[in-house]
Amino acid sequence: MDYKAAFHNALDRVREEGRYRVFIDLKRHRGDFPVATWTREDGTTADVTVWCSNDYLGQGQNPVVLDAMHQAIEEAGAGSGGTRNISGTTHYHVELERELADWHGKEAALLFTSGYVSNEATLSTLYKILPGLIVFSDELNHNSMISGIRAGAREQRKVFRHNDLDHLEELLAAAPEGAPKLIAFESVYSMDGDIADIPAIVKLAKQYGALTYIDEVHAVGMYGPRGGGVAERDGVMADIDIIEATLAKAVGVMGGYIAADSVIVDAIRSYADGFIFTSSLPPALAAGALSSIRWLKTHNEIREAHQERADTLKARMRKAGLPVMESSVSHIVPLLVGDPVHCKLISDILLEEHGIYVQPINFPTVPRGTERLRFTPTPAHTDEMMDKLLDALEQLWTHCNIARVGGVAA
Amino acid sequence: MDYKAAFHNALDRVREEGRYRVFIDLKRHRGDFPVATWTREDGTTADVTVWCSNDYLGQGQNPVVLDAMHQAIEEAGAGSGGTRNISGTTHYHVELERELADWHGKEAALLFTSGYVSNEATLSTLYKILPGLIVFSDELNHNSMISGIRAGAREQRKVFRHNDLDHLEELLAAAPEGAPKLIAFESVYSMDGDIADIPAIVKLAKQYGALTYIDEVHAVGMYGPRGGGVAERDGVMADIDIIEATLAKAVGVMGGYIAADSVIVDAIRSYADGFIFTSSLPPALAAGALSSIRWLKTHNEIREAHQERADTLKARMRKAGLPVMESSVSHIVPLLVGDPVHCKLISDILLEEHGIYVQPINFPTVPRGTERLRFTPTPAHTDEMMDKLLDALEQLWTHCNIARVGGVAA
Repeated sequence: MDYKAAFHNALDRVREEGRYRVFIDLKRHRGDFPVATWTREDGTTADVTVWCSNDYLGQGQNPVVLDAMHQAIEEAGAGSGGTRNISGTTHYHVELERELADWHGKEAALLFTSGYVSNEATLSTLYKILPGLIVFSDELNHNSMISGIRAGAREQRKVFRHNDLDHLEELLAAAPEGAPKLIAFESVYSMDGDIADIPAIVKLAKQYGALTYIDEVHAVGMYGPRGGGVAERDGVMADIDIIEATLAKAVGVMGGYIAADSVIVDAIRSYADGFIFTSSLPPALAAGALSSIRWLKTHNEIREAHQERADTLKARMRKAGLPVMESSVSHIVPLLVGDPVHCKLISDILLEEHGIYVQPINFPTVPRGTERLRFTPTPAHTDEMMDKLLDALEQLWTHCNIARVGGVAA
Repeated sequence: MDYKAAFHNALDRVREEGRYRVFIDLKRHRGDFPVATWTREDGTTADVTVWCSNDYLGQGQNPVVLDAMHQAIEEAGAGSGGTRNISGTTHYHVELERELADWHGKEAALLFTSGYVSNEATLSTLYKILPGLIVFSDELNHNSMISGIRAGAREQRKVFRHNDLDHLEELLAAAPEGAPKLIAFESVYSMDGDIADIPAIVKLAKQYGALTYIDEVHAVGMYGPRGGGVAERDGVMADIDIIEATLAKAVGVMGGYIAADSVIVDAIRSYADGFIFTSSLPPALAAGALSSIRWLKTHNEIREAHQERADTLKARMRKAGLPVMESSVSHIVPLLVGDPVHCKLISDILLEEHGIYVQPINFPTVPRGTERLRFTPTPAHTDEMMDKLLDALEQLWTHCNIARVGGVAA
């Protein structure tokens, strides 16, 4: 068996499909976000403006977050030293879980090492706790949700067309009446920037006796009067059974969690391997996230500034005839390119010639033919940064002869 | 469908089995490890000595680690802001991966958010890259390895009896000659404290044309002249194909990784969902781990001090007739209790009356009838702490009338 050849073949397939990834080596400047230093492969460096960060609100540089992290390191050191059960539950974890429960108006919350793990561990564990469970899953759900749902048998997984509630209802109606059911979906879908109709899903769940599981990783901190997410904004947070989200995007740190009734949280805590058998988050991360959330709850102005930046960027791009995807009703600004080679090329030129960093999004993250650049303007992106971006994009769209909207270019 | 009742029933089952977990709320004192403040459920506090931390060498309070974390927070902020591919590769990650590769004498290394994820993601992905792969897995392998191996079909998973190389050989010999094969095992098994015969496993792997995958999470930093693990100590590091370990135990921070040939690392990097679709580690964690490893490489004296403390504790316990498990040839000191209720009771009394924290280890973490207390003495545990511990244990063993070794008590 020639193992090396097998690994090389696997990589060749990735290259042939045009999806071999080269990571951009960045070092962000604290206090100067979204500026970062890019280190090229030859060791030389240049300053760039990051336009694709999921630190959506710049909380990764908020002094209240950094101060809390510094203080926790000074008080308690670096790592937690254990799993939650074996010496790894620190007072920071306990306080953060209380804060998260309060944020979502739930009785309890449970921390995981990442949003990925929180989805995978919770969803796979629900099959263990609710024998015969059928999960109804939006077809665009994140890989981590799919990974958890895959723990169920084939007949326990029903995929409905993206945000198609007629299809969801059809599947619900076809399922055995007495079987335990769960509708698993996201609020903001990160690649298209569209938002689910949560009240309508809640209504269907009640009608068919299903639990609801929402992923708000691209929404917490950014929507709702206290930043509790789209479910808070839409007044249906109390109707959702399990809310899952991350501490690594708008909160600005790292980690994932669920918030729900105490009995649900306690059951997941007691059965989820991905929670039980792993070292807990370092005290500094729990302290930083705690401080970030307390700040986010009471600073609605950052959410307003965020929406204004996104709306402005979309308006300016549309005015320039650039093909902002119609789907976006959120803070995510996807610009359609529709070709993987062009998409990568534009990204490379933006980085090398304009000091603008936006990652190309190609298959398999999005379907072939819908390759795109995905911009995430934050409150820290200035009008001048937008001027520079628009100038560069206009040049490139002309240069590459890519389709514009409204016939501005062919 | 009464969902609440189903969740309550699941919890009742856990309670009936005597394995409902109550987390101990701790706050360690930086600079004063292994001392921590314990916050009781009623909010009152007490100082305790932690005897069950996996911060085996106290690196979680090493100033070189904390300084590096502070500096990274000052330079780059809190979180990384993205997945490795989308703005989340920082210069700290790049440097740390190079350092990890060097630590293990490999061409490359790959960071994951945790050791759990590194095992699950890597092992499950190997099935994708090597069609028909058969994994030969030690029966005591960690939950995270089992979770990854479960991605294979039934005929692709062969479990050999713990450290039983005759059984392993039997299974290897019975497998189709041309099929891709992988032997997956740990060096130090964390609950029994025993160590695998790595040179013999390597020999079998060569004989039967199998790849080798070793989990050194309970060994890196602690064994080998540069702390590269038991494989380094035994002179067989170069013979292992994939080395997996954690940054959350002896390194003192958080995160997991693999080290291997470039082509293997690149293939895992390109195919592993658990690596691709998750936010990367915060810069401060990467910087802290980097600094910790550089320090560990050149401070063999901490490994000598660590082994001395473990040997001393084992010798003192044995002299007192306390049943240290014979299996332990490592830094882990398991004390057999053999009953889940006694085990929990002793732990509770040690905490409440003696200010000593050691978590009871009950089923399902260990087999029924082998319930134990698992002590992990570090270089920071003093003779006086040991005096106090031995006094308390002697009292309790007499009080509870638990079996001693050599007939000291019945």
